Amino acid sequence: MHNELKTSRVEALCDGIFAIAMTLLIAGFNDMLNWPKSLNETELRSLIFQMLPDLAYYVQSFIILGAFWIEHHHQFHYIKHTNLTLLLISLLAFMFVALVPFSTLIVGDYGHTRIAAILFEANLLCAGLFFYIHWVYAANKPGMTDRALDIKTIKFYNRKNLVIPIVSVIAIVTSLVNPQVGSSIYFTVPIIIVLQRVG
Amino acid sequence: MHNELKTSRVEALCDGIFAIAMTLLIAGFNDMLNWPKSLNETELRSLIFQMLPDLAYYVQSFIILGAFWIEHHHQFHYIKHTNLTLLLISLLAFMFVALVPFSTLIVGDYGHTRIAAILFEANLLCAGLFFYIHWVYAANKPGMTDRALDIKTIKFYNRKNLVIPIVSVIAIVTSLVNPQVGSSIYFTVPIIIVLQRVG
Amino acid sequence: MHNELKTSRVEALCDGIFAIAMTLLIAGFNDMLNWPKSLNETELRSLIFQMLPDLAYYVQSFIILGAFWIEHHHQFHYIKHTNLTLLLISLLAFMFVALVPFSTLIVGDYGHTRIAAILFEANLLCAGLFFYIHWVYAANKPGMTDRALDIKTIKFYNRKNLVIPIVSVIAIVTSLVNPQVGSSIYFTVPIIIVLQRVG
Amino acid sequence: MHNELKTSRVEALCDGIFAIAMTLLIAGFNDMLNWPKSLNETELRSLIFQMLPDLAYYVQSFIILGAFWIEHHHQFHYIKHTNLTLLLISLLAFMFVALVPFSTLIVGDYGHTRIAAILFEANLLCAGLFFYIHWVYAANKPGMTDRALDIKTIKFYNRKNLVIPIVSVIAIVTSLVNPQVGSSIYFTVPIIIVLQRVG
Repeated sequence: MHNELKTSRVEALCDGIFAIAMTLLIAGFNDMLNWPKSLNETELRSLIFQMLPDLAYYVQSFIILGAFWIEHHHQFHYIKHTNLTLLLISLLAFMFVALVPFSTLIVGDYGHTRIAAILFEANLLCAGLFFYIHWVYAANKPGMTDRALDIKTIKFYNRKNLVIPIVSVIAIVTSLVNPQVGSSIYFTVPIIIVLQRVG
Repeated sequence: MHNELKTSRVEALCDGIFAIAMTLLIAGFNDMLNWPKSLNETELRSLIFQMLPDLAYYVQSFIILGAFWIEHHHQFHYIKHTNLTLLLISLLAFMFVALVPFSTLIVGDYGHTRIAAILFEANLLCAGLFFYIHWVYAANKPGMTDRALDIKTIKFYNRKNLVIPIVSVIAIVTSLVNPQVGSSIYFTVPIIIVLQRVG
Repeated sequence: MHNELKTSRVEALCDGIFAIAMTLLIAGFNDMLNWPKSLNETELRSLIFQMLPDLAYYVQSFIILGAFWIEHHHQFHYIKHTNLTLLLISLLAFMFVALVPFSTLIVGDYGHTRIAAILFEANLLCAGLFFYIHWVYAANKPGMTDRALDIKTIKFYNRKNLVIPIVSVIAIVTSLVNPQVGSSIYFTVPIIIVLQRVG
Repeated sequence: MHNELKTSRVEALCDGIFAIAMTLLIAGFNDMLNWPKSLNETELRSLIFQMLPDLAYYVQSFIILGAFWIEHHHQFHYIKHTNLTLLLISLLAFMFVALVPFSTLIVGDYGHTRIAAILFEANLLCAGLFFYIHWVYAANKPGMTDRALDIKTIKFYNRKNLVIPIVSVIAIVTSLVNPQVGSSIYFTVPIIIVLQRVG
């Protein structure tokens, strides 16, 4: 029925969800809520240094969310109309995006366990797959993009949208052996994205 | 006085409120804030498995909020101007939308009780009724929609906006007998919405 | 220098801040985070009934935030450009809007004390005064509105933007005698706004 | 490839992140979550007065975030297109903006320690530097701004975007001697910005 819904609403919802998810990542610093109020310089410094792994996960998740957001931005550079199917795919992607602060918090606190690492990576895998499906559906459905896209552009973004899913699969497999190495593989994502830009 | 307010502001407020409510649903995973910091693989896995009902409620509430958001999106596909009455109805709807993370948290923790299930379902019933009233008012008030809407479109969205209220009434009645069956009836909402699309 | 900044950014920031402040009002239900996980039907029901005052404050604050948001929306129906002064006034107003979830939480928990009631009411008084100043500045500064506004419109919105500050002063004075009566005076705000619409 | 991405998305993400970061500053009032539910007038008043430093940091951080937001707003008054590099710089700036509620919370609770003050100031320094880099890149890269900017405008905003980084360096140095003086230097930021407007 509605193949002609405007895209501004889903773009606004997307921007809102990413803005909140990115900002809620600071929930990963929840440890500090249990700190006693009277700490001297040395005690506070040592507690803050213990939070460095949380900071690393904050940076990593922020970068991954940023990468998803840029993907979505690029997709809607081409997509000019949306429909119920595309909205439902978007919502499924957002459902996993909104889980990222939670899975980051878990992996930040229990990063030495396989279950925490794999939970985090499976979360990103699912989000990434729905963004990929979103692109494949929109790029191939007539009427969604302004004009028919050339095969080269479609394939370029097919590859781009597969970066996070593929990295996630590698991370999950690696985490079975070594969880901490596994979940730090995502630091390659921005490098791959920047390299792809040239390629 | 102002029958001619633009709709972009209330759409933006709506997108913001849904984005936040959807993201705050992770508050339902609050149990984990009480977990000890030193957990081994097995202990963490068992605690995470105990949270599966919370995850089910997360998914369900996300889907319901998504369904409301799509409804609102569809309504404003037709509504081109707003006025004070319509803004007040919107705000009442949003007031119940913003309660969803709270009632989800309650039903996630105490889903075996009637009071928690009915609180959750009554919350969705009220939100749904205000979205329905919003549509009925806007569709029938001259000057709100771009052009006069045909009866068929009005009735189609009347039915669409009644899905969640009707499901909620059924859920409330069912919850009097069995709360856990009652609140899981909402999983039918996306199916009904997709079917309606065809019908 | 910039008397010609577009208004869409400050409208978007406003919509975002109101959306978040409205949704964060559920922080007023923080009591429930201390509830034991194993509660039976009767215990949970009695705890939920004890939260009814919190719910009343939630509804009231939501309505007041809604009233502020509608005011802002109406103001920008006329204001077409903004400048540094107007942005600074907006930010000061938003600074008090963002405090509302906090002062609501305090008044919800300690509504029987004068200090909590007056804190809440002074918060709304300050927010209201900055919204009033915002309108007075914009309506009288040449180049901010699309065309010169007629005196009648300026005065109508002068009155409208004074509703919350005046109600707040009355509430503060009343709270010195009886805090609970004082902070419930705000329930008159929507009535006044709707009546003003006619007048 | 994409030197021609529209700017509305990154403006919306920015507005969302600032709206949330500003509103989450109330997390600095977290002390009150530990207050007993039964407090009389005198006890509550004394606890609230103990929170005045938190309120001062709230106001200060709100003003600084407001100053960053106005900077970003001014930048995009001139910037008409964006590209991947500019988006990445934006995201890095936002990553530090989203940390402000956290570093404000730390400095609010432990403002007497050097580590807390310097953490807060280093956070603002990094955010400020990325906003500065954003402007320098955009102003000098052909095709980002609508038309070539004159040298005077570029230099004016170079100076404007350096205010917070320079104040931050002064604050860090001062904090090595006296942390509480150091972090209160930011109250000069709005004054400098208003004076610059004239200059």
